[in-house]
Amino acid sequence: MNPLQEIMNPRSIAFLGASNNLIKMGTIQLLNLIDAGYQGNIYPIHPKEEFVLGIKAYSGIDVLPEVPELLVVVLPTRLVPEFLDAAGKKGIKRAVIISGGFSEVGEQGASLQHTIREIADRYGIRFVGPNCIGLLNTYIGLNTTPLTYKMRPGGIGMASHSGTYICHIFPYLENLGVGMAEAISLGNEANLDVVDALDYLGNRPEVKVICLYLEGIRRLREFLQTSRRIVRNKPIVALYVGGNEHGARAASTHTAAVSGPDSLFRGILRQGGILQAQDTEELFDLAFVLSEQPLPRGRKVAILTNSGGPGAAMASSCSRLGLELPEFSPSLQSRLRDYLPKTGTCRNPVDVTFSMDMDSYYVHLPTILLEDPGIDGLLVYGVFGPDFLIEQKRKLGDRLEMQSEELLFSLGEENARQFAQRLRGFGKPVIGASFPGMKDRAVEILIQGGIPHFPVPERAVRGMAALARYAEIREWPPDGEMIFSPA
Amino acid sequence: MNPLQEIMNPRSIAFLGASNNLIKMGTIQLLNLIDAGYQGNIYPIHPKEEFVLGIKAYSGIDVLPEVPELLVVVLPTRLVPEFLDAAGKKGIKRAVIISGGFSEVGEQGASLQHTIREIADRYGIRFVGPNCIGLLNTYIGLNTTPLTYKMRPGGIGMASHSGTYICHIFPYLENLGVGMAEAISLGNEANLDVVDALDYLGNRPEVKVICLYLEGIRRLREFLQTSRRIVRNKPIVALYVGGNEHGARAASTHTAAVSGPDSLFRGILRQGGILQAQDTEELFDLAFVLSEQPLPRGRKVAILTNSGGPGAAMASSCSRLGLELPEFSPSLQSRLRDYLPKTGTCRNPVDVTFSMDMDSYYVHLPTILLEDPGIDGLLVYGVFGPDFLIEQKRKLGDRLEMQSEELLFSLGEENARQFAQRLRGFGKPVIGASFPGMKDRAVEILIQGGIPHFPVPERAVRGMAALARYAEIREWPPDGEMIFSPA
Repeated sequence: MNPLQEIMNPRSIAFLGASNNLIKMGTIQLLNLIDAGYQGNIYPIHPKEEFVLGIKAYSGIDVLPEVPELLVVVLPTRLVPEFLDAAGKKGIKRAVIISGGFSEVGEQGASLQHTIREIADRYGIRFVGPNCIGLLNTYIGLNTTPLTYKMRPGGIGMASHSGTYICHIFPYLENLGVGMAEAISLGNEANLDVVDALDYLGNRPEVKVICLYLEGIRRLREFLQTSRRIVRNKPIVALYVGGNEHGARAASTHTAAVSGPDSLFRGILRQGGILQAQDTEELFDLAFVLSEQPLPRGRKVAILTNSGGPGAAMASSCSRLGLELPEFSPSLQSRLRDYLPKTGTCRNPVDVTFSMDMDSYYVHLPTILLEDPGIDGLLVYGVFGPDFLIEQKRKLGDRLEMQSEELLFSLGEENARQFAQRLRGFGKPVIGASFPGMKDRAVEILIQGGIPHFPVPERAVRGMAALARYAEIREWPPDGEMIFSPA
Repeated sequence: MNPLQEIMNPRSIAFLGASNNLIKMGTIQLLNLIDAGYQGNIYPIHPKEEFVLGIKAYSGIDVLPEVPELLVVVLPTRLVPEFLDAAGKKGIKRAVIISGGFSEVGEQGASLQHTIREIADRYGIRFVGPNCIGLLNTYIGLNTTPLTYKMRPGGIGMASHSGTYICHIFPYLENLGVGMAEAISLGNEANLDVVDALDYLGNRPEVKVICLYLEGIRRLREFLQTSRRIVRNKPIVALYVGGNEHGARAASTHTAAVSGPDSLFRGILRQGGILQAQDTEELFDLAFVLSEQPLPRGRKVAILTNSGGPGAAMASSCSRLGLELPEFSPSLQSRLRDYLPKTGTCRNPVDVTFSMDMDSYYVHLPTILLEDPGIDGLLVYGVFGPDFLIEQKRKLGDRLEMQSEELLFSLGEENARQFAQRLRGFGKPVIGASFPGMKDRAVEILIQGGIPHFPVPERAVRGMAALARYAEIREWPPDGEMIFSPA
């Protein structure tokens, strides 16, 4: 069994390095674990304090009333070996070593890292780290990072050489509208590495997409074998930052990473069936879409918009990213035209221009498009919730009675909810964009209803292109060629 | 004088096409103009209503009590010629024709567009449009678009073939943290075009950067001459969407644009000294940075971060975008080391890792870096406001007294304000990034204090690279070669 199975789902945790001093990292992390609602036993270990953060503390590992399933270590570097040894003696088999000051700081640290590996091997301890931020499992309230995870559990499983990418990122993901399932901060990978994490996340049913932040890969062959197995059922997206002079220098002082040039890693990731993100934004954009949308059968998409500009920007992106925007047949155009104002166009993009006819935009047009067998996916720009009309009402003041109560209703929240539900009913991917983003309540409702929505039109197109690409990756023959053969 | 001078700064406006029916576009637009606080005279023209939105209305252009400086037309297409003729008879010289249904809908519309051009020429009327959304001048409360502009006036001057890009974009810019000065929706450019808009915006002191959304260019020679003149003093950023099959089709049905292939337009924009944005996000990111930051003297940048991952992602982006990240001299490293914890690194990136020493991060480290003559600009990842500690306090509940009142203060708003002020004091560009973005109050304060800040590390780097590129464009010899000679 993958040791991460126990590490990510422990029934009890001993915590080394927390105190009642709130400006210490260990304290902040234990506090967060408590706050996250973890239900297992927690045993703070502290030489002097009777209670740590209100929980009964123990003076040493040896006096713990049970053998905890996981040990979390946030001690000063020099103390780590002796406490790891004590953990081994107690019979603890799983640990997360958050403490830094190992390989990433040079030779002396590397030697210390060698020492803790030896100790772990002696006792059969498997551990994550050192020099990491810890673990997140949103489904059981396991959060050893310093930051609060506020969203409901989601579908992203993440393994990262950067701890920041599994905690600072929480409010970013809130803004985006997508949630995490589990995350592992790999640090220096002295014992468990990204291959173990891939394997573990690949087997977790709650994880719908795997996100990787990579500064290098230590076991290339196993990495490729594992990823190629996983991508048949689950998409993997990776951001690689160690591939050039500046990135490699930063990575080496960060996690002592074993990096290689961008050109090499492009090939590796492609061979592994992994979608490579060009930057952090793309990493999470693709994860958002891949974790929530069905795959298209092909690359033919339709664009539905209430604005020409964003429609044209989307169309242009489709060309650049290899999506087809078929010009609609006369018969399809004629059916669409029934629901368009005179100024509207329907060659694809379908542009309703200005229209207050919400039934056309929310019901008839998307239905016609998604029912058409020649269309594999739908991009939508421009969703308006009640906010716009509420704003009109404010502007009106006492100039005029608001006549449009009916409209206010039709633009209401229930409408957006039904829209999301309808869009999900065709088994085809739908991705939206609106400049106001989450500022518009309708957008928030759509996202909650499972329709990814971006504040930039081109990001929606990029998401659709990734779905199409991943659909193709899944179709690889099982014995597809590997450049890096398992020598 | 450029006719846009009067169009963008009118002392009185006659409005055709507004009524008391709030689901009509004209009504929504007049309501918005009133709400925006425009101080000139407004004359709604309506055949029957005595008052429109509470303002005295006139039954025709001929009975207006004065000759208005600007006519806004939101009438049904077929009515436009006769009212334009009446405007000419009255002596009106400037107009915005918002109505659509002209060249963008085919031959019949093109003929109608020809007609209104002839009428305008007969009376010496210069106009923006048709098929546009109108005008924005935030400094005088001129807003004929349907959407509320809520921010304080800013430095972006925009000319756009898409009306959406000058109004839907308002909440997007709010989220980003940058304001507009003026914007012109060009529509079909039957009379005034993007060259006129460039020339006008180039002369406006409030406009610090010009943004273009382009579906094509009708007067290429004049466009290049004008842009090359302007970019000596003011940067121009452009998004071009008409350059491929799908984009061109969308553009043709949108504004009857005269587009050309991407490869050609890349050359044109480069020759014009214009920074080309790859997508909508880059367009406004670059505008944000270029409107608020001084230019670097070269491409050598420093990275200051409290997190290794985003630091490495920034470093990697620097390599890709041609920025240099010089490895610091031993003497500079030694001065930096005084303010770093043991786990910190200072080869560039400077990574403080975990530290609660706010003085080092907010005062000493950036000062040392920005004072160094070998550093042209600074990238900062990770700014924390009081939000983090407030969150700690909530988590603590009654577990423990919060000891860190002092810290809470040092992380307070005043601190962030002083940080922004300090960063501006060196005449060098500084751009920040933090994943929480505006969710963190400190980020909001930094942005308000003139330090652009992005929720994605790589976007900050892209902004810095654009500053460096524009600094080089300004240094072109005045008679620099043009591929498209003024034949």
